[in-house]
Amino acid sequence: MENFDLHILGCGSALPTTRHNPTSQALHLRGKIYLIDCGEGAQLSIRRAQLQFSKIHSIYISHLHGDHCFGLPGLLSTMALLGRLAALPIYGPWGIKDYVREIEQRFLTDCPFTIEVRECDCRTQSLVHEDASVKVYSIPLSHRIPTIGYLFEEKCAERHLDKPSADFYKVPIAYYQHLLAGKDYITDQGEVISNAYLTKMGRPPRRYAFCSDTKYYPPIIELVRGVDLLYHETTFGDDLLHRAEATAHSTARQAATIAREAGVKKLLIGHYSSRYESSDALLQEAREEFPNTDAAFEGLCINL
Amino acid sequence: MENFDLHILGCGSALPTTRHNPTSQALHLRGKIYLIDCGEGAQLSIRRAQLQFSKIHSIYISHLHGDHCFGLPGLLSTMALLGRLAALPIYGPWGIKDYVREIEQRFLTDCPFTIEVRECDCRTQSLVHEDASVKVYSIPLSHRIPTIGYLFEEKCAERHLDKPSADFYKVPIAYYQHLLAGKDYITDQGEVISNAYLTKMGRPPRRYAFCSDTKYYPPIIELVRGVDLLYHETTFGDDLLHRAEATAHSTARQAATIAREAGVKKLLIGHYSSRYESSDALLQEAREEFPNTDAAFEGLCINL
Repeated sequence: MENFDLHILGCGSALPTTRHNPTSQALHLRGKIYLIDCGEGAQLSIRRAQLQFSKIHSIYISHLHGDHCFGLPGLLSTMALLGRLAALPIYGPWGIKDYVREIEQRFLTDCPFTIEVRECDCRTQSLVHEDASVKVYSIPLSHRIPTIGYLFEEKCAERHLDKPSADFYKVPIAYYQHLLAGKDYITDQGEVISNAYLTKMGRPPRRYAFCSDTKYYPPIIELVRGVDLLYHETTFGDDLLHRAEATAHSTARQAATIAREAGVKKLLIGHYSSRYESSDALLQEAREEFPNTDAAFEGLCINL
Repeated sequence: MENFDLHILGCGSALPTTRHNPTSQALHLRGKIYLIDCGEGAQLSIRRAQLQFSKIHSIYISHLHGDHCFGLPGLLSTMALLGRLAALPIYGPWGIKDYVREIEQRFLTDCPFTIEVRECDCRTQSLVHEDASVKVYSIPLSHRIPTIGYLFEEKCAERHLDKPSADFYKVPIAYYQHLLAGKDYITDQGEVISNAYLTKMGRPPRRYAFCSDTKYYPPIIELVRGVDLLYHETTFGDDLLHRAEATAHSTARQAATIAREAGVKKLLIGHYSSRYESSDALLQEAREEFPNTDAAFEGLCINL
């Protein structure tokens, strides 16, 4: 099966610590990297994770708080210095266009590639990107400024050819495309061979949902239902529920409630407040609501 | 003697490596930190060096290439989150005002302190800052865009009171200020006591000069003559002299030539091109011209 790896480059929150970098993740899928958020120092974490800048296909910014985007000027400058030529799509909320234009005008006057910035609607889910490998949907979140999460759904063939059967019924190669599109085959003798004999159903597509930053926001549940992996921010523990409410963040228990209600396969928590020396207590609180929870850390790579 | 410590936070150049951070230094003098350049990740290096953000007195930016200023948005945001109230002077070349205003408008709308940006003349040396501890002079450099170095000269009392002598001649305490200003003392009997009997000369002020980025530029020599420590960029070795010339950078040998001609006490090299796995060869080439040379590395702290 093709790789579908999530690399955690940073899972801290706004205040820097020596334990965590600000938010950034790299989703590595079929040789392409989809970069999610780009906190300060992301380019260095990409180097440390031994990922290649040239494989970065597109960038997805959740919102314009510094801990999610201050790494963008440095990363774009490095890509320019390395002579990238491929156009680079950057997706984000309202305002991302102006921000990237300012970076371009001030620091990227000789940039050899085109940056294609696309602002997403922050209020309704939509398909924001599609290529041969993946469909990316926005997930409206609720934070202090316009913020979106992203759902990555790999593209798989719905049907695979059952080659021995196709050979047995002497289906011409030119007809394979019709089999994969679901059609039956009619032999020269007029016998109808059901598609079910000639193809096998493909596996369901793997799906990853990224939700940060957001307050506890139940509308997320339907949008991430049944995903293989949900990353949901967990800035605070039960002890600071009032801070979570005041700053439009979530507690570990709230993140786990979303995971449980959505029936996801696995929950990954992160975006820890700098107040917490360790993520242990947050992890424990989340697992009380949703046992299949793990805590993100820099360098973690999850293969879905 | 009061501390006068230089902390190297980053001494790499434009392309990120896992060996070096981009340029940033903290000069720690009498409890105040004078931050020189602010490459991406500087705030994290400040944490690692166990320096306190609240002690940052002012910031000195050499030029507006990203590897010297991309850490500014993150550092300023963190200072705002930590509730700094003291005004923060930021010095830099032409253009720094617009850059900082953009950061303020986009990311620091609730900033509790005032940022006082002051653009320095990049063509002639001038006194850009003075307080009770230090005088800071600009050093015009020659790079691809307007660039300045900085000379930090501590303020020392020129004379110290010789208390036993002052007591012996019964100098009234109210007259001490005149002694320190160099005046003689006339006793009630009309006897002139020479200032030389009543005061001792203070030690000469310690001086640190920061020169990066610049091509080999002999006008620097007079401006840094005899300093205790000169940091001079050393992007390339002899092998890449042509690259140094093409990109307006210096080789190790050129940096050391400046140090030798200026008769500085010690040279510190840095801003290594990412091509070099180690600074050893650059250090050797520099020492051939100027033996008292050291190579900067992240975490180095030099007490002048």
